[in-house]
Amino acid sequence: MPAVKKLGQQTLVFHNPPTIIASGTVVGSKEAEGPLAKTFDHVIEDPYHGEKSWERAERRLLEDAVQTALQKANLTPQDIEFFLAGDLENQTEASSLAARNLGMPYLGLFGACSTFFEGIVLASVLIDGGFAERVLVAVSSHCCTAEKQFRFPTEQGVQRSPTQSWTVTGAGAIILAAGGNGPVVTHATVGKVIDMGQGDPANFGAVMAPAATDTIVRHLQDTGRGPAEYDLVVTGDLGLVGREIASKLLEDHGYSLRDRFTDCGVLIYDPQKQDTHAGGSGCACLAVVTGGYILQQIQAGKLQRVLGVGTGALLNADSPKQGETIPGIGHAIVIERR
Amino acid sequence: MPAVKKLGQQTLVFHNPPTIIASGTVVGSKEAEGPLAKTFDHVIEDPYHGEKSWERAERRLLEDAVQTALQKANLTPQDIEFFLAGDLENQTEASSLAARNLGMPYLGLFGACSTFFEGIVLASVLIDGGFAERVLVAVSSHCCTAEKQFRFPTEQGVQRSPTQSWTVTGAGAIILAAGGNGPVVTHATVGKVIDMGQGDPANFGAVMAPAATDTIVRHLQDTGRGPAEYDLVVTGDLGLVGREIASKLLEDHGYSLRDRFTDCGVLIYDPQKQDTHAGGSGCACLAVVTGGYILQQIQAGKLQRVLGVGTGALLNADSPKQGETIPGIGHAIVIERR
Repeated sequence: MPAVKKLGQQTLVFHNPPTIIASGTVVGSKEAEGPLAKTFDHVIEDPYHGEKSWERAERRLLEDAVQTALQKANLTPQDIEFFLAGDLENQTEASSLAARNLGMPYLGLFGACSTFFEGIVLASVLIDGGFAERVLVAVSSHCCTAEKQFRFPTEQGVQRSPTQSWTVTGAGAIILAAGGNGPVVTHATVGKVIDMGQGDPANFGAVMAPAATDTIVRHLQDTGRGPAEYDLVVTGDLGLVGREIASKLLEDHGYSLRDRFTDCGVLIYDPQKQDTHAGGSGCACLAVVTGGYILQQIQAGKLQRVLGVGTGALLNADSPKQGETIPGIGHAIVIERR
Repeated sequence: MPAVKKLGQQTLVFHNPPTIIASGTVVGSKEAEGPLAKTFDHVIEDPYHGEKSWERAERRLLEDAVQTALQKANLTPQDIEFFLAGDLENQTEASSLAARNLGMPYLGLFGACSTFFEGIVLASVLIDGGFAERVLVAVSSHCCTAEKQFRFPTEQGVQRSPTQSWTVTGAGAIILAAGGNGPVVTHATVGKVIDMGQGDPANFGAVMAPAATDTIVRHLQDTGRGPAEYDLVVTGDLGLVGREIASKLLEDHGYSLRDRFTDCGVLIYDPQKQDTHAGGSGCACLAVVTGGYILQQIQAGKLQRVLGVGTGALLNADSPKQGETIPGIGHAIVIERR
């Protein structure tokens, strides 16, 4: 009888779980002033990163994160079989240009701020399915490219609403392999797009909380596990507002996660000292916190099994102006210490 | 000894090749006036498709193509395990909103006009890897949403350059399954991003021809096959200019494809009668021609084995203005009659 590779409707099981053999994280100066300062590999003080535009800077951040992960694993781009990447720039341009410069076979993804985990899901499928030995997943975001593209001209310095999050400037990369040492990815739950009618582009937490909840509940039902079987449930960028909403929604479903539940967007900044309002967001928020702090906690033995949920607000800048609400999504992975 | 699932650096082999059990194609009025008119499932005469914006119309086209494929297979969205989709709108908004309305677990992709085949590659990996029984892949493009987003206000009617292509208005969907009747996907070659320094957003053919060539050459080298082992090699949207360049580049590599080589963008319009200059382009160009005409030719026994190469110009509207050239990509799949 073949091994069961699917639980319920949405959860995949990896019987030869891919190993996270290395990660690389690069952040901007604001992230380096926050509580997780010591967990990042590199800090870029100049938001232009020596380039002539923020977009080119973001592409370089992404390349830096990839090169950092490769160096840690003592590998070159030629050793990587597939490069899965995405970002928030229109047509994921930072990823396309980084893929060109790095020269690895490329599969472009768009899951907004959930993209890092969407990539890990597909990389795990490629590896556990026997199609690849080594896959690299990377994402980026940049506060200045996101602000000008989705909201107002960055230089205008428009006053921010209290529910608004701060886009993380940075990039994260991770190498998954069929063997080697490191934590492993044992399960993945692919999310559905959930839209509860929230249309405010300044409140992503409210957009994504129902999607995150739906994926967590689905994961627990599919696997037959309770929240207590995880040392930590960590979402990507719900922020303070979204975490509060998701906590309540999970309680409505009979799950009380309490201290076991946190969010990368809550962890990355100190909202009082750093004036970041609802917290961090952006593709890099999930990537630099899980690729840095969370993996380090697992490697140090402080966490044994983590359920991570990449959250994304699938926002196009013109769509709310045409009367649309904002759809949200959440993709979950289980990372275990080996 | 386990079966070899990888040939060379970039080609995947599917030992339990996924079956294409159904496809659905929807196009606009211009496509319905072209040489392939009779091969499409549905024609939408109104570019607004009853909606208030072209973007909402494109989302509906995508949903229509999905529903058409589902109806042909006598399935509902609940029978589909994963929905893989993408489009050219910023942040692939047509796909996000369609995924919300259709309710299937969703993995968003961005490969520009190559997205349909990128989706088929990943769907085949999910199915052959044992992770899914049925996966649906769909993409869309709309002439009016693409024109305003990438070039000039659509209403302005700017004169078009002779090298420019016409974005196909339409959507295509395909259902891949672990069993059933229909042609099968036996191989996939994941492309690298190739950029030969072409920076003119009005000449996508020149952007993508080197990427298409690179993927075809890589596929033939990886598999040890010659072009004669394929009844047809068909690219996505090189158009007349790009097909000419790719033919020459392939000859430089020692491959003379001649009549065996065509392009969906060349097939879909009559350039003289329809004033479409270099031919068709857009995500839907690849999807409605391969999901319609090519599959019909295979099913009718006129083609036994086809190498299809989805081509994409990974263009962001602002990037050339910042001095960047345009990166191209090509993803190949092999479709065989069973």
